[in-house]
Amino acid sequence: MREQALTYAQTHQAETLEALTAFLRIPSISMLPEHSGDMVQAAQWLVDRLTAIGLDHVQMMPTPGYPIVYADWLGAGPAAPTLLIYGHYDVQPVDPLDEWLTPPFDPTVKGEDIFGRGTADDKGQLYIHVAAVAAYLQTAERLPLNIKFLLEGEEEAGSAHLEDFVMAQRDLLQADAALISDSHILDPATPILITGVRGLTYMEISMRGSRQDLHSGSYGGVVENPLNALVKLLASLRDEQGRVTIPGFYDDVEPLSQAERQAINAGPVSEALVLAETGAPALWGDPDYTLAERKGARPTLDIHGIKGGFIGQGAKTVIPATASAKVSMRLVPHQHPKKIAELFTQHVLSISPPTMEVTVETINAGGGAVIDMSVPAIQAAADAYEQTFGRPPLYLREGGSLPIVPMFIDILHAPVVLMGFGLPDDNLHAPNEKFHLPNFYRGIETAIVYYDLLAEQMGKGRPVDDQ
Amino acid sequence: MREQALTYAQTHQAETLEALTAFLRIPSISMLPEHSGDMVQAAQWLVDRLTAIGLDHVQMMPTPGYPIVYADWLGAGPAAPTLLIYGHYDVQPVDPLDEWLTPPFDPTVKGEDIFGRGTADDKGQLYIHVAAVAAYLQTAERLPLNIKFLLEGEEEAGSAHLEDFVMAQRDLLQADAALISDSHILDPATPILITGVRGLTYMEISMRGSRQDLHSGSYGGVVENPLNALVKLLASLRDEQGRVTIPGFYDDVEPLSQAERQAINAGPVSEALVLAETGAPALWGDPDYTLAERKGARPTLDIHGIKGGFIGQGAKTVIPATASAKVSMRLVPHQHPKKIAELFTQHVLSISPPTMEVTVETINAGGGAVIDMSVPAIQAAADAYEQTFGRPPLYLREGGSLPIVPMFIDILHAPVVLMGFGLPDDNLHAPNEKFHLPNFYRGIETAIVYYDLLAEQMGKGRPVDDQ
Repeated sequence: MREQALTYAQTHQAETLEALTAFLRIPSISMLPEHSGDMVQAAQWLVDRLTAIGLDHVQMMPTPGYPIVYADWLGAGPAAPTLLIYGHYDVQPVDPLDEWLTPPFDPTVKGEDIFGRGTADDKGQLYIHVAAVAAYLQTAERLPLNIKFLLEGEEEAGSAHLEDFVMAQRDLLQADAALISDSHILDPATPILITGVRGLTYMEISMRGSRQDLHSGSYGGVVENPLNALVKLLASLRDEQGRVTIPGFYDDVEPLSQAERQAINAGPVSEALVLAETGAPALWGDPDYTLAERKGARPTLDIHGIKGGFIGQGAKTVIPATASAKVSMRLVPHQHPKKIAELFTQHVLSISPPTMEVTVETINAGGGAVIDMSVPAIQAAADAYEQTFGRPPLYLREGGSLPIVPMFIDILHAPVVLMGFGLPDDNLHAPNEKFHLPNFYRGIETAIVYYDLLAEQMGKGRPVDDQ
Repeated sequence: MREQALTYAQTHQAETLEALTAFLRIPSISMLPEHSGDMVQAAQWLVDRLTAIGLDHVQMMPTPGYPIVYADWLGAGPAAPTLLIYGHYDVQPVDPLDEWLTPPFDPTVKGEDIFGRGTADDKGQLYIHVAAVAAYLQTAERLPLNIKFLLEGEEEAGSAHLEDFVMAQRDLLQADAALISDSHILDPATPILITGVRGLTYMEISMRGSRQDLHSGSYGGVVENPLNALVKLLASLRDEQGRVTIPGFYDDVEPLSQAERQAINAGPVSEALVLAETGAPALWGDPDYTLAERKGARPTLDIHGIKGGFIGQGAKTVIPATASAKVSMRLVPHQHPKKIAELFTQHVLSISPPTMEVTVETINAGGGAVIDMSVPAIQAAADAYEQTFGRPPLYLREGGSLPIVPMFIDILHAPVVLMGFGLPDDNLHAPNEKFHLPNFYRGIETAIVYYDLLAEQMGKGRPVDDQ
């Protein structure tokens, strides 16, 4: 059954790419309200596609935000394990648009890559599983295990309604393992399994210094400028070594054990690699930790944008009435995102100057997780990678945040497998996002193998097999 | 002759307002290239209007940027003084557009105010002199003195080509006094004469931290974020008291004399007034100087905008590849704008971190001036204000920068009279710019009186008078 599915996938690559391209053309940007129609169109596209390949119970399930697309195939019976596959059909905004070399929603193949918004994050990786399931259903009319799809439309907007949904639908979603393909491997030949993800607390600070915009010639030196007050406050949130200065910020950070440090530092991260990936003039960070530790196992604070005043061409001498900044903190396991949001808010208000009316808003707050690598669901993933790529995966603490990981662990009590197929230079959240097509096709094969290995390793009895 | 002109102005207010409204409808934003057609249209509108009211030598004179409109009436003969009237037909950009209560280029009268971009700065104030000259020419067919108009189109963009133009055309522009109506009075009943203006050095700092935008989950804590580096640098440019920390910045600042301090502090500026004008929660500044001193006689540093990253709705976790900031410094007389630009550049580069590629650009640099109040041109202005408003003017060191002032003093060796008719709450460079119509009409009368008084006080022999 596995071999037929693999052959089917290999001989239908052109059709698979064509379907993915149609999916990528829909500008499903969840953060921008003007794309709400596109969001619904993308969800409907998935419903149609999942129905066409033979899944059951395909439905668009409402949330207070964008709908979640659910589908399943439970024909392997209760003796076979059930795998829950998570993906998201929304994508990041595309600004700055003028830095794209090809239109973000006109997917373009150049060499071995396909360029476009959502190619790697996450439509391309999500579609790997649609194609793998299709390959089984088109050949054997069955899968070696039970499958449930949970496809979200608000991941790039902070997954605001996912936790309530998973909690309410925990019986429907119950599974023996959850699988997410929304991460990257080291290079096209070297797979990576993720051993932990960071949490994220995302805040917005707003300052008002006057009723209306003022002329700096008339009021400079007399009425404080919110941009000057804001940069002073923002600059104080980190010390010279990049450590966060918010009181209590590090209180819940569990020290890395000697074994953990060894494992992290044995990974693929190197200064030369990061310099090559980013083109940065020099690297940077807390000198008490190695590059690999800082990259995934330490909390951070970053400013993402500062609004207010004039950023056009020329020389407008405005003192803006208001200014605001978006700031996020990546958190490690045991730091509580909501507690960090409170500490941040208290600290910012306590150091705000009397010249400003200051408000602090929590945009979102989601936790991190450390993944237990010893369970069968993860071992099967390592085996699937090894069988398909010809070498075992490396293990990496991921710096990014996937709120779904601690959510699945806490609510569904299921192990979470982070089996990604992107590359480090895929330009996620940036212009010219791409996906490496050999990874796409190899991803489909890895998924086909994984479903079969998971059925073997977790099955309480082997289901009726194909001869 | 003066009385007839005054009567004419008073009986033709409706027509005058209609003409101003047509001028205000042209969106002549010099800083935005997409308005270049509107700039030429505004210049042509002035040419047509100045021709229609009977001026001579009306012409659009080219510069490497937008044209300068010149016109004169020299019929008073060599025994009468010549007054050069400067104004600018360009206006500020209108963003944030959504804060305007009426469309910026659809001038709207509400109560005693006319709202729209350029109403006060400077089309309305410029048009005061067009109307005053018209009142004389329509009644007596002559003026009591010689008049030259110099109407610029790049004031809001830094007057990049004005100095070269004035230098090249200094014979054409030669005058006994120069008059600028581009400032404000205290309130509709209390005129102000400006005794000094500040210089301006406007800079842009750009930082690049990586080749492309990065994901903060992947590179936070490892590759420095240009926004974090930039706020740290910007915050360091002022100390706790708001003093500028750039080495050498204050070297050329002449200490205020006891007499100057007394004069400045006898002026109208008060904490209650500034709080009421601005709605600021609290005022601010160098404790070694009074509010009035800080407002006009001390140098300042303001940030006008910070570009880079994401400022839309939601939670994008980008580490932008680049970030930039616009920063200007108001300078007092004897500070050299180009020297300050150099000191700024050297200092910023010297404190830039190794994680960033930093560039510093001078957007513009123009000097300040102190005005000698004892010359006849200024005394005539004080008398004209007193005759029209019924009370003598207050004297104020203006915080803003009018590069034309030191330029006229240096190149034309002419005293400069800053006779304004705006109000402090006219929202210059901000949404809902307005001009108080009683000030507009009273401004026309003051100009009519001023031309006559100046002819009397500076005339080497009284020209042939009307009977």
